[in-house]
Amino acid sequence: MKNAIITGGTSGIGLGIARLFAAQGYNLLLNGLEKYGQQIADELAQEHDVKVMFSSANMQYSDQIREMVQQAEQEFGQIDVLINNAGIQYVAPVDEFPEDRWDAIIAINMSATFHASKAVWPGMKARGFGRIINIASAHALRASEFKVAYVAAKHGVAGITKVLALEGAPYGITCNAICPGYVRTPLVEAQIADQARAHQMSETEVIEKVMLKKQPIKQFVEVEALGNLALYLASDAASQLTGAMLPVDGGWSAQ
Amino acid sequence: MKNAIITGGTSGIGLGIARLFAAQGYNLLLNGLEKYGQQIADELAQEHDVKVMFSSANMQYSDQIREMVQQAEQEFGQIDVLINNAGIQYVAPVDEFPEDRWDAIIAINMSATFHASKAVWPGMKARGFGRIINIASAHALRASEFKVAYVAAKHGVAGITKVLALEGAPYGITCNAICPGYVRTPLVEAQIADQARAHQMSETEVIEKVMLKKQPIKQFVEVEALGNLALYLASDAASQLTGAMLPVDGGWSAQ
Amino acid sequence: MKNAIITGGTSGIGLGIARLFAAQGYNLLLNGLEKYGQQIADELAQEHDVKVMFSSANMQYSDQIREMVQQAEQEFGQIDVLINNAGIQYVAPVDEFPEDRWDAIIAINMSATFHASKAVWPGMKARGFGRIINIASAHALRASEFKVAYVAAKHGVAGITKVLALEGAPYGITCNAICPGYVRTPLVEAQIADQARAHQMSETEVIEKVMLKKQPIKQFVEVEALGNLALYLASDAASQLTGAMLPVDGGWSAQ
Amino acid sequence: MKNAIITGGTSGIGLGIARLFAAQGYNLLLNGLEKYGQQIADELAQEHDVKVMFSSANMQYSDQIREMVQQAEQEFGQIDVLINNAGIQYVAPVDEFPEDRWDAIIAINMSATFHASKAVWPGMKARGFGRIINIASAHALRASEFKVAYVAAKHGVAGITKVLALEGAPYGITCNAICPGYVRTPLVEAQIADQARAHQMSETEVIEKVMLKKQPIKQFVEVEALGNLALYLASDAASQLTGAMLPVDGGWSAQ
Repeated sequence: MKNAIITGGTSGIGLGIARLFAAQGYNLLLNGLEKYGQQIADELAQEHDVKVMFSSANMQYSDQIREMVQQAEQEFGQIDVLINNAGIQYVAPVDEFPEDRWDAIIAINMSATFHASKAVWPGMKARGFGRIINIASAHALRASEFKVAYVAAKHGVAGITKVLALEGAPYGITCNAICPGYVRTPLVEAQIADQARAHQMSETEVIEKVMLKKQPIKQFVEVEALGNLALYLASDAASQLTGAMLPVDGGWSAQ
Repeated sequence: MKNAIITGGTSGIGLGIARLFAAQGYNLLLNGLEKYGQQIADELAQEHDVKVMFSSANMQYSDQIREMVQQAEQEFGQIDVLINNAGIQYVAPVDEFPEDRWDAIIAINMSATFHASKAVWPGMKARGFGRIINIASAHALRASEFKVAYVAAKHGVAGITKVLALEGAPYGITCNAICPGYVRTPLVEAQIADQARAHQMSETEVIEKVMLKKQPIKQFVEVEALGNLALYLASDAASQLTGAMLPVDGGWSAQ
Repeated sequence: MKNAIITGGTSGIGLGIARLFAAQGYNLLLNGLEKYGQQIADELAQEHDVKVMFSSANMQYSDQIREMVQQAEQEFGQIDVLINNAGIQYVAPVDEFPEDRWDAIIAINMSATFHASKAVWPGMKARGFGRIINIASAHALRASEFKVAYVAAKHGVAGITKVLALEGAPYGITCNAICPGYVRTPLVEAQIADQARAHQMSETEVIEKVMLKKQPIKQFVEVEALGNLALYLASDAASQLTGAMLPVDGGWSAQ
Repeated sequence: MKNAIITGGTSGIGLGIARLFAAQGYNLLLNGLEKYGQQIADELAQEHDVKVMFSSANMQYSDQIREMVQQAEQEFGQIDVLINNAGIQYVAPVDEFPEDRWDAIIAINMSATFHASKAVWPGMKARGFGRIINIASAHALRASEFKVAYVAAKHGVAGITKVLALEGAPYGITCNAICPGYVRTPLVEAQIADQARAHQMSETEVIEKVMLKKQPIKQFVEVEALGNLALYLASDAASQLTGAMLPVDGGWSAQ
């Protein structure tokens, strides 16, 4: 029986990954700011007969991150897998990019990965096993206009990933980053209709020409693809796979 | 029931991957130059109750590659997965690097990937499904001294991988490259004792300080890690993962 | 007559670059925390007959960065070149890495690049010309153990570089990053003797085996190489070179 | 007085670079298949008062490459700089890509770089100085559809570049690759009018939307930018810059 923490695990990509891990028998701590986070956790627990904790820790604050890890360690005894997935976005040209959005994105999308990894590290090191999986982005490898904070933060996560891979090498701890393109989530699906109206295009057109403009495969990435890859990374078989940036982006970064 | 071709599939990494695919019910064509290739194929077929063909096609010659693919298509009806794995190595300083070794390595390690992919392409395109998996190398991303042909060929395979990803995007064909560091194979195991004698070191020392000098994790990559990753890439779940270079190298390329 | 701001310009790499820019007739604002910063600026001004301002703005604080840019714009009329060079370092394993060192390194080595670029952007955009040159590091591309904050920050700078390149494309603004390996600076020279004592090695040995372990060329990078490359990037000839990570690292990132 | 060989030096990018090197006092061997190659060489020699040899060696054949280098060494005494620039292109989907075009592109765009570098190596090694500059392409880093041979060859050149950087490190030989996007050459200018007719667009439109679709800066790269960068790489100042891929691509590879 293994135990995993998934930040931002109560919605979107994080929840999608959580379902696959629960189905494989992992106990989970799901973190999120959703009002009904506890309920989401309880339903998942019941469905798959595993323990699922909920934490409303705010990823902007290091002390809340540390507490969250302590809670999980107390409840589960040990953390085998940490999935750093929480993230926010803000879009604006650099000269209009608000300073408080810069600070929040760097804190949540990047520094939280450091704080959470630091918190699980002593336990993983002591037990000689750990898997840290960062849900980065194609933006950890490539840029887009008007996303200076997001791209900086995700590139920073790439740097953290490689350092932790090197430091974890002697201790059985691996660290990798999954770099998705645009993923089908409820949030994204809601945007399709809005964007179709805004661009006066059909929904198919808005997907192919606007939302997936950079992805040669004109389909959103399915969260199951990310979950299956994360399960592979968490497995014993992947013990020599570390420090890697793994794009799942429909060919975006190839061109 | 799916069908796969694995070049260089009768030994080392290729055979290791073949075992995992056979265990999952794939029919296989294994290609190799081994004298007992047919026997290896027969044993695998019997063990897993799948069809396993053997082809002694020489990867240096495009006509033999085409024939091999035709044979497999005739026997199996269609090819779903092509694993370009065959490869040779030669080590010498650039000013002493023999021209015939350059030509052979470029032909087998790089051009064969083009010829085999071209041969399976019309069938994959017509059926709207294909998985091309290139077993490249950490040397598709980074260089080592005295391996000019190998590094050039493997970088070239990276280029092929990305182009095929883009061209395959409208047709349900993905193309990715797995980039292993040093892998534990019978060939490599045989070298350990030899190198230990040559360097007057213990076998452990020769592994950590000589053979795995560039890999922060001081263990050979296990062929199962590559096989499991290849199975994931071959699956329906990985349909949006394309054009990616996937290192399994113990952290080599992170530093 | 062109004008440039160089953060961290009163010592080390920044001062080395400043000398070459002054010699080419650039007016400069040099920023630094040195007690004798004004004197360094005055001497450079006199030697090359250009204007050289000194600013003791602390790169940790966005308001001080904005003020610095305003000062320079008031004095020089316009800023043509911004060289984001200021940086600090701290070395510790991830589980012992102090939170305040993380915050300071992210602020100075990464966020300051955003704040300074944002501040010069409106002027560069209005005039249709700008050159932003980030002095990143080989650590913007590769990791080393025990430098989690530095590597994250420098990778983050890589992300900023690419975004600004895209956003600057319509306005004649380019943004690139120079990625040095270990550079000969007074600070580094002072470390050689110390490290030689600590490792009980000769100074040559400590350079080749400890300090330049990762650089195949066993010589420190000279600051003139960086300055000349920066001058090239600042020139009109380089108007199509943007968004690039330019390693000057003795071969480090090639292997 | 220094001496350089430029393959494909009698037209396009190669000739553009040749002009800048001649203006800096380099003696040159220009290689090309132009009928009037000798005349081009003579005019350049006269204009800049340097020696300029012409060689019609066919880059497809290693013996002709070797002879070309020998000729230059006999005439000039020594070769300081080798610029591997010759290249051809062919565009077709992978399943229709002619085998003889694959072979020719791999030979000329990739293997010639190996053969020429091997030929100049002993002299450079003996004298402790050498600069090998490969004119690769953005396609050494990223792919485009229908260019499988070109992309494979240019990625292969990236591999050669990194290996030669490592092998040259102890001998004062550096090797780097310049990776241009679309460059303004007479050949390209001729295509603009043709493509404008074919697409029924204005010339400006065809440049921005078709030819420079992947380049955020909507201007062709000027050959002077490449020549100036090559001069920098050839200089003593760049002695620690090696093994680098240097994009000059208007932001293509950043996104």
